[in-house]
Amino acid sequence: MKFTPPPSSLRGPLVIPDKIMMGPGPSNCSKRVLAALNNTCLSNFHDELFQVIDEVKDGLRYIFQTENRTTMCITGSAHTGMEALLCNLLEEGDIVLIANNGIWAERAINMATRYGADVRVLEGPADKPFSMTDFKKAIEQHRPKCLFVVHGDSSSGLLQPLEGLGKICHDYDCLLLVDAVASLCGVPFYMDKWEIDGVYTGSQKVLGAPPGITPISISPKALEVIRSRKTPSKVFYWDLLILGNYWGCYDEQKRYHHTVPSNLIFALREAIAQIAEEGLEPVIRRRQECAEQMYRGLQAMGLEIFVKDPEYRLPTVTCIMIPKGVNWWKVSEYAMNNFSLEIQGGFGPTMGIAWRAGIMGESSTLQRVNFYLYAFKESLKATHPDYVFEKKNGQTNGTK
Amino acid sequence: MKFTPPPSSLRGPLVIPDKIMMGPGPSNCSKRVLAALNNTCLSNFHDELFQVIDEVKDGLRYIFQTENRTTMCITGSAHTGMEALLCNLLEEGDIVLIANNGIWAERAINMATRYGADVRVLEGPADKPFSMTDFKKAIEQHRPKCLFVVHGDSSSGLLQPLEGLGKICHDYDCLLLVDAVASLCGVPFYMDKWEIDGVYTGSQKVLGAPPGITPISISPKALEVIRSRKTPSKVFYWDLLILGNYWGCYDEQKRYHHTVPSNLIFALREAIAQIAEEGLEPVIRRRQECAEQMYRGLQAMGLEIFVKDPEYRLPTVTCIMIPKGVNWWKVSEYAMNNFSLEIQGGFGPTMGIAWRAGIMGESSTLQRVNFYLYAFKESLKATHPDYVFEKKNGQTNGTK
Repeated sequence: MKFTPPPSSLRGPLVIPDKIMMGPGPSNCSKRVLAALNNTCLSNFHDELFQVIDEVKDGLRYIFQTENRTTMCITGSAHTGMEALLCNLLEEGDIVLIANNGIWAERAINMATRYGADVRVLEGPADKPFSMTDFKKAIEQHRPKCLFVVHGDSSSGLLQPLEGLGKICHDYDCLLLVDAVASLCGVPFYMDKWEIDGVYTGSQKVLGAPPGITPISISPKALEVIRSRKTPSKVFYWDLLILGNYWGCYDEQKRYHHTVPSNLIFALREAIAQIAEEGLEPVIRRRQECAEQMYRGLQAMGLEIFVKDPEYRLPTVTCIMIPKGVNWWKVSEYAMNNFSLEIQGGFGPTMGIAWRAGIMGESSTLQRVNFYLYAFKESLKATHPDYVFEKKNGQTNGTK
Repeated sequence: MKFTPPPSSLRGPLVIPDKIMMGPGPSNCSKRVLAALNNTCLSNFHDELFQVIDEVKDGLRYIFQTENRTTMCITGSAHTGMEALLCNLLEEGDIVLIANNGIWAERAINMATRYGADVRVLEGPADKPFSMTDFKKAIEQHRPKCLFVVHGDSSSGLLQPLEGLGKICHDYDCLLLVDAVASLCGVPFYMDKWEIDGVYTGSQKVLGAPPGITPISISPKALEVIRSRKTPSKVFYWDLLILGNYWGCYDEQKRYHHTVPSNLIFALREAIAQIAEEGLEPVIRRRQECAEQMYRGLQAMGLEIFVKDPEYRLPTVTCIMIPKGVNWWKVSEYAMNNFSLEIQGGFGPTMGIAWRAGIMGESSTLQRVNFYLYAFKESLKATHPDYVFEKKNGQTNGTK
């Protein structure tokens, strides 16, 4: 045995500073969630793991507001929820319609194309939602097997209303697939009442759990479509018939699928239990109040929000327009260095034109929002002494 | 807002008992590794995350014994390492040869078939390795683009020698892909010296980190093959050109790919740092000594090992044959109830005929092995009072 020597970079201790994570996620976890991570890793040999898995499923059905048995978690980032839905529901040549007004829809287009689907795109501006008429016309035109829509887009802060869309889709024998990564538990969401066929969310966003595990649920109708595929889905890892078996979604004996990340499952269980204890309504109301406080505070500083119409603002992600003459990075850097506060930059349609503020996980309190506004103002003042906070009539804010 | 009520199953606290995990993984993590999980989740906005990512890459190159720049982690279980290699290196119609003598090769066959590859199988018994002559003949016959081999099979406890195989593969313009999930850091492994083109390992096995993140490395030759694909790989999530960009493997500006599981990355960093501090040679030698102690102890109880030839035994997983008349589950159940010790059952070729004992993570000490042997004996005695421990000449052990 003779090995090259170990790298010197691993010699020091691991030092990760505490930060206040108020971007579009990951958010800060509660102490209870973090403590759950430290339990013994369990494998499928242990009943305690399956008991927690059952509790997580109960909790997911609650936050998705569904009775779907086919509710489980994928071991992977929220991205895998999107890819798993498309991979399971599309076969080569199937028509999929993607409502594209942000970075996530672009990604869905990329994925569906790789699976050989016939991808049709409904284009829209990043700061305005699609109307039900837009959807109906596009569905009539393309007659897709699936429609993919983002409920709350973390790249724009746009909230897409979904009520009524399931009915339209089902009138045309189309499945409705929804990305609720940044929206779930931040705004009302009713999977069953809204007739949604497939949804996934992010653990590390509003839920306040660590990243690496992704809740997903599909309707009986979607399950039926998967069961009647002509070819197996391309990816074994995401095959919801096999993964769903392991998660106990079907009346079958459980078979090993993969080693689930028990620590992340324990943490997710605690994050959902905290939401269940508080209740969905107070949880959502609290985030809406925080968002309104954020809007008032930004307005008082003469700052504008990317999504103009308050009705279509996602309370969990606010994109704050960068005023004329302001170097966004300098503000963010100052806030990090002086307040340990994350003031994230834009992404996709807001790249270089906005910051993104998140009200998620442990940061969904008025105290945190007030702190954010204070630190934001101080950072803007310190880095741009000329900045004019008072917005005069008809005048754009910015530096003098 | 009106929601269905929260489930009662989430009302109680999360209670996960401490257990001594000595199956084929997940293993117990060290206190240092568990502590790392509790750091703030960071996103790609934070330099500290990328510094740790760089340290992890350095550490992975050390444990894989490679200089490959294309070394990274996939967010997912070890299973995703297998699927990512096949997904990136195979296009429809490509011939892949899979050396099949355990459960993992079967899975690789399933995956490669889904990607539309032309799958050829080299069959072998689960308790004996393939010889270099076996491989050479099969490669000559099938002329595959890739050969897939499992280095250490956790379903059988078989160690497959790899030295010399890379040379044979390259003589026939074939890439060598290796599953080192259960073997890495348990036996010597030299990616570069052995000319291996693709490898992945499990975080939750020998390394002693939590599950949910999977180290993977590919050679410049494999990277070249991926770069010259005629079609993009089917899966965006596993596209090593995109994921590798995020992990800083190429001379390109980093682009966002997905939210990495920072907590798991921190924990993996600490697990690898512990190995680097001790050194690969002492780490491997310690596990070999533990395995020899395990073999001696089992022999003293009249128990047999599934892999007869000691040369081909994987030190990290020992499959212990279930003696005649013994109910394996009763033994395992007793050990769990009385010693909090995991005595795992068989899987694949050893299902119902063997237990599987693991020497991984924090359980790779002589003390733990001695405890395992003691608890095993007590559990066997208590559940099978008739069991005869003394093996007479020519007599099979078992109950009277």
